[in-house]
Amino acid sequence: MATPVRSGVPRPGRNPAFPLPSSPGASQEEIRRQNLGAVLRHVHVHGPTSRAELTTRLGLNRSTIGALAADLAATGLVTEEAPTTARRAGRPSLVVSPRSDRVYAHALSIEADRLRAARIGLGGRILDLREAGRPCGMSALDAVGPLADLVRDMERSVAADAVFVGGAVAVADTTRDPDGRIRIGGADEALGAALGAELAAGPGFVAADMADIAGLAEHVRGVAAGVDDFVYLHGDLGVSAGIIIGGRLVVGHRGHSGKVGHMVVNRDGLPCGCGSRGCWETEIGEAALLRHAGRDPAERAAVAEVLRAAADAEPTARAAVQQVADWLGFGVANLVNVVNPDTVVFGGYLREVFAAGADTVRRRLDEMALPASREHVRLQAAALGRDAPLIGAAELAFDKLLADPLNAGVAGQPGTGQADAPA
Amino acid sequence: MATPVRSGVPRPGRNPAFPLPSSPGASQEEIRRQNLGAVLRHVHVHGPTSRAELTTRLGLNRSTIGALAADLAATGLVTEEAPTTARRAGRPSLVVSPRSDRVYAHALSIEADRLRAARIGLGGRILDLREAGRPCGMSALDAVGPLADLVRDMERSVAADAVFVGGAVAVADTTRDPDGRIRIGGADEALGAALGAELAAGPGFVAADMADIAGLAEHVRGVAAGVDDFVYLHGDLGVSAGIIIGGRLVVGHRGHSGKVGHMVVNRDGLPCGCGSRGCWETEIGEAALLRHAGRDPAERAAVAEVLRAAADAEPTARAAVQQVADWLGFGVANLVNVVNPDTVVFGGYLREVFAAGADTVRRRLDEMALPASREHVRLQAAALGRDAPLIGAAELAFDKLLADPLNAGVAGQPGTGQADAPA
Repeated sequence: MATPVRSGVPRPGRNPAFPLPSSPGASQEEIRRQNLGAVLRHVHVHGPTSRAELTTRLGLNRSTIGALAADLAATGLVTEEAPTTARRAGRPSLVVSPRSDRVYAHALSIEADRLRAARIGLGGRILDLREAGRPCGMSALDAVGPLADLVRDMERSVAADAVFVGGAVAVADTTRDPDGRIRIGGADEALGAALGAELAAGPGFVAADMADIAGLAEHVRGVAAGVDDFVYLHGDLGVSAGIIIGGRLVVGHRGHSGKVGHMVVNRDGLPCGCGSRGCWETEIGEAALLRHAGRDPAERAAVAEVLRAAADAEPTARAAVQQVADWLGFGVANLVNVVNPDTVVFGGYLREVFAAGADTVRRRLDEMALPASREHVRLQAAALGRDAPLIGAAELAFDKLLADPLNAGVAGQPGTGQADAPA
Repeated sequence: MATPVRSGVPRPGRNPAFPLPSSPGASQEEIRRQNLGAVLRHVHVHGPTSRAELTTRLGLNRSTIGALAADLAATGLVTEEAPTTARRAGRPSLVVSPRSDRVYAHALSIEADRLRAARIGLGGRILDLREAGRPCGMSALDAVGPLADLVRDMERSVAADAVFVGGAVAVADTTRDPDGRIRIGGADEALGAALGAELAAGPGFVAADMADIAGLAEHVRGVAAGVDDFVYLHGDLGVSAGIIIGGRLVVGHRGHSGKVGHMVVNRDGLPCGCGSRGCWETEIGEAALLRHAGRDPAERAAVAEVLRAAADAEPTARAAVQQVADWLGFGVANLVNVVNPDTVVFGGYLREVFAAGADTVRRRLDEMALPASREHVRLQAAALGRDAPLIGAAELAFDKLLADPLNAGVAGQPGTGQADAPA
């Protein structure tokens, strides 16, 4: 027999995440970049943190953390201050804090019937927030002008030494035309470019799907923090998903993954705005609830009424919610069998449907999903509510800075930020 | 207005793969480990490669590549030799080759009706291959003894200085009981441990789902090489998928992702072995083809006959294949809407169904999937055929070595491999 040798413990039942066949080598410069990013990301996500705690959390030694924090402070990305209360004897460890006041992103959203724009500081603090209506039939590209107006309005009160690092826009998957028909839209490449051009903003704007962005927000700051494999379901007129696997957003080819609202669940179902029939969103979108409750499917304002009536045990409203919840469980079971996430998070209007019909969702899931997949899966209401798209958009906008803090173009000293042809 | 600064080009339409909030820092030692792994993985996947080409491919400088290759050679993982034909003037660049003869893994498969065991050398070369029948009703754990016999039989002809780095076993999702009922099984943790104990093999065995493993094989050495986002569909008695996103296998909680055969596609369909009804595999598994062709659904041997008859334009067989192909397209459309892969690969018996019914699959996909997702997606027959599970299992088994070549326990010099209590 040949000579077996120990190659470490096997990982039964859990395949390693197989990397690409050829990964490039890492240089000294890249390590420094990674470590600067790790420190900045930590205080961005977790807030002010002492050097001592950073040392523990990031597994780097004290002198390395000290040097990294000093570099970030010199660039104006963080402050370092003595803690207000020292708990132990000896020299207290400096506390590193993100400069939310100075470094900020623009977070925009194009929602079913409104537009929003926020200025969000490093660390995730909402510094300013504006809103405007979105008339029926307004396309995402049509929204560029009104969104730019909101942004310019916010910019009037920004300090001269503040630094804009980039922007992102969350786009709802589905809109309604003036004639009441539902149209499939979503983020496309032209939108980010158009916003960048309109605002003459050098760093530009990233456009992404609402559900992807809101899922990202729940992953970084919400109910799915620390959960590596989860599905965020966003529902209003349409239904789509942000799928995060192994801590990474599944984007698919050109960002078009997660169109779960167009899984066909009912082959003999109703026609869908996408041209197919019996899509999941024809069974669980807002229009389905209104239909079951005997209301006009185009009357969005009635959705809240139906949900309230169901909570008051009004029989028709209650049956309508349970019917939607049953189809919600049906599609979730399919997603659980395919993706096998640890958690499914319900957001948008589906948050309320889940809250009212959790037992029905779980019953259908138990009937349909495989035991190995369904037994562990947690079903949860979203935590961040209506701000999730804005919070997530800011995370996308900060991503470049967090990946490479010193080369993202933020100027060397506070107050000397280099302008890049602002509007 | 504040000072916008350049933070690089936006990535419109394609969200960055958002990393975990806190990533640990990288050390010198880790860089060396990564680089050694990158060199070894390159020659493992691409075969003998000159130092000069490694320099180009991996983006490292010449002296670094030279030192890394020398370290790997000293450990007995690669050889370095002058090329047999030098194409240019000057000193020829040494060629680095994987030591397929010396370093090997055990790749096992528990298939619907047979067991296989192969010895596969570094570089992916099949050095030896054995096969035994798998009687109806034999569970995966029951297969441990017969598989160990195959392994011991192979080990008799292994050179004394050969080094075993680990093993993996691919397990079919579905089996048939003696009474003809289909049972849902799959890989579980106990299986890898039982194989490790039976063979007293220190490195142990990883157990994983057949489709995950075959998908991995197609990703490393098959039709999906270089494709980062794809779905591999494996069908025989049952149907499951290996889903690779961003170059990584989606494993889900405890390895149970990709059970796509249990998406419910037909709410009023037939009962499934999983306890649900109308699962995709009731419409596209082998039994469905046999049913439509008027054959006994339990008679597996007839599947090939029906496929042949369809190729000869026999009307009943042809209609049966088209019906399965139509449901195949139905489920693929749902997967394309959810995951939005670049490529869908058809393996196992579905390879033949796709070959015969590609137009039907595509037609159904075009009817159901969203334009943005379906327009780019390539549909392809698997390339590796019946050896895919073994080739993929070897990749899993080599993974630990490729991640950390010098610390995976492979001894310092050829011929001095430390034994770890072989059988």
